[in-house]
Amino acid sequence: MFQHEIKIRVRYAETDQMGYVYYGNYATYFEVGRVESFRAIGFSYKELEAAGIGMPVLEYKTKYLAPAKYDDELTITVKISEMPGVRIRFEYEIRNEVGKTLNIAETTLVFINMETGRPTRLPEKFEALMHNYFRES
Amino acid sequence: MFQHEIKIRVRYAETDQMGYVYYGNYATYFEVGRVESFRAIGFSYKELEAAGIGMPVLEYKTKYLAPAKYDDELTITVKISEMPGVRIRFEYEIRNEVGKTLNIAETTLVFINMETGRPTRLPEKFEALMHNYFRES
Amino acid sequence: MFQHEIKIRVRYAETDQMGYVYYGNYATYFEVGRVESFRAIGFSYKELEAAGIGMPVLEYKTKYLAPAKYDDELTITVKISEMPGVRIRFEYEIRNEVGKTLNIAETTLVFINMETGRPTRLPEKFEALMHNYFRES
Amino acid sequence: MFQHEIKIRVRYAETDQMGYVYYGNYATYFEVGRVESFRAIGFSYKELEAAGIGMPVLEYKTKYLAPAKYDDELTITVKISEMPGVRIRFEYEIRNEVGKTLNIAETTLVFINMETGRPTRLPEKFEALMHNYFRES
Repeated sequence: MFQHEIKIRVRYAETDQMGYVYYGNYATYFEVGRVESFRAIGFSYKELEAAGIGMPVLEYKTKYLAPAKYDDELTITVKISEMPGVRIRFEYEIRNEVGKTLNIAETTLVFINMETGRPTRLPEKFEALMHNYFRES
Repeated sequence: MFQHEIKIRVRYAETDQMGYVYYGNYATYFEVGRVESFRAIGFSYKELEAAGIGMPVLEYKTKYLAPAKYDDELTITVKISEMPGVRIRFEYEIRNEVGKTLNIAETTLVFINMETGRPTRLPEKFEALMHNYFRES
Repeated sequence: MFQHEIKIRVRYAETDQMGYVYYGNYATYFEVGRVESFRAIGFSYKELEAAGIGMPVLEYKTKYLAPAKYDDELTITVKISEMPGVRIRFEYEIRNEVGKTLNIAETTLVFINMETGRPTRLPEKFEALMHNYFRES
Repeated sequence: MFQHEIKIRVRYAETDQMGYVYYGNYATYFEVGRVESFRAIGFSYKELEAAGIGMPVLEYKTKYLAPAKYDDELTITVKISEMPGVRIRFEYEIRNEVGKTLNIAETTLVFINMETGRPTRLPEKFEALMHNYFRES
């Protein structure tokens, strides 16, 4: 299993007039969670795209348990529970400064060849890095 | 059953460098779908809030079947399949100009008293309007 | 002189917790104003890009005179006062439903060859269309 | 003179299909610059609002010298050159990792009483903190 944590500060731009983080903006927090998780293990999403591989999102599910608010420092836990193949599934949990869970979510993404638009195997370098977290017992 | 259709044009701001609509921006399209559906039956979300009732989103699930692109004119179908109570569930489908389905989604929202933050019955006016679509047989 | 008007409805996503349209979101409104102005005269920004020409913004100035609010139907007036060359300058005014001016702005954009990133002459088709608005007396 | 620097990483959500940071998104970067500058001197914008004082933007000018791109780590320099009164003016410069200036901007904001919507004196605590940077010679 792979797990990583990041912190993010809620921006004014991300609030709405209800005084909450707008429900659509969590998707961006999860993107940052994914990208920073990759960076933490030495893998760059930017380089992935430069090498012609993209990772569009196929599916996204989220539950809003309590609102995040302006200036909150959120902790986002990113988890990969199964060894990724053509597809990769991330699970997320967002907690506020006092440890209260505000949001849980999951996304499924697919590796695609950006020229053809078709699914492709996960890049070798990434596969090797991931194997460290999914060694067989 | 209640069903309504709106059209929306993809803005440049909503695209990302993959050349797709960023996956987080569909949430805004669904918001516009909900609000315009309400307006179509003579109900204003703005007035609802002015009367002290908010409608935060509890749950959101979406599948990205094919990418929406810049300047696409999207048709968003908004459907309410069950008579709303304290909660209201919306289903959505997004199609492009040639009728291809790009995205399906659903959201569950709750009516809350904005002062107490607690769930509340749906407003009488809205309940009466909704009954027109959910008459008993 | 070229002038065109569009209407835009403020989305919930565009508000912030002050209850105003977030100051950064007006830029998107002006983008829609530019694109729809072009469409109105038979010119497509999407096709322009497909032909390898982009129009990045060089400069943007705006004054916030009064806040736009959720669900407001805004009228955006887009004006081009001088015949465009390599650069094109747009002026904007946003008014609310009772005709009050909320915002004035201007942007300068440049036509670039997207492959080289270098400035390029405005496309012939667009130049011809613009000449209808800037005939010599 | 007051000056402060922050770093910000460009998110995928902030790019557009030109592969640049969308021109409207810099406003959010400047917001983060202002808020973190305040935090650095021991002043919280969140508390300011909790005390009934808001800071809407009156004017915003910006020049896009070169595009910021996905995953760039940007350095934003925030400068206040004159002792703030009812109004406060910020200047900004954004540089990329190799020190190239990508953007310069300035914003003028006003302190308002959020109940009346009218301009108000800057809060005492903030005035005292600012005086450290604008002592008379």
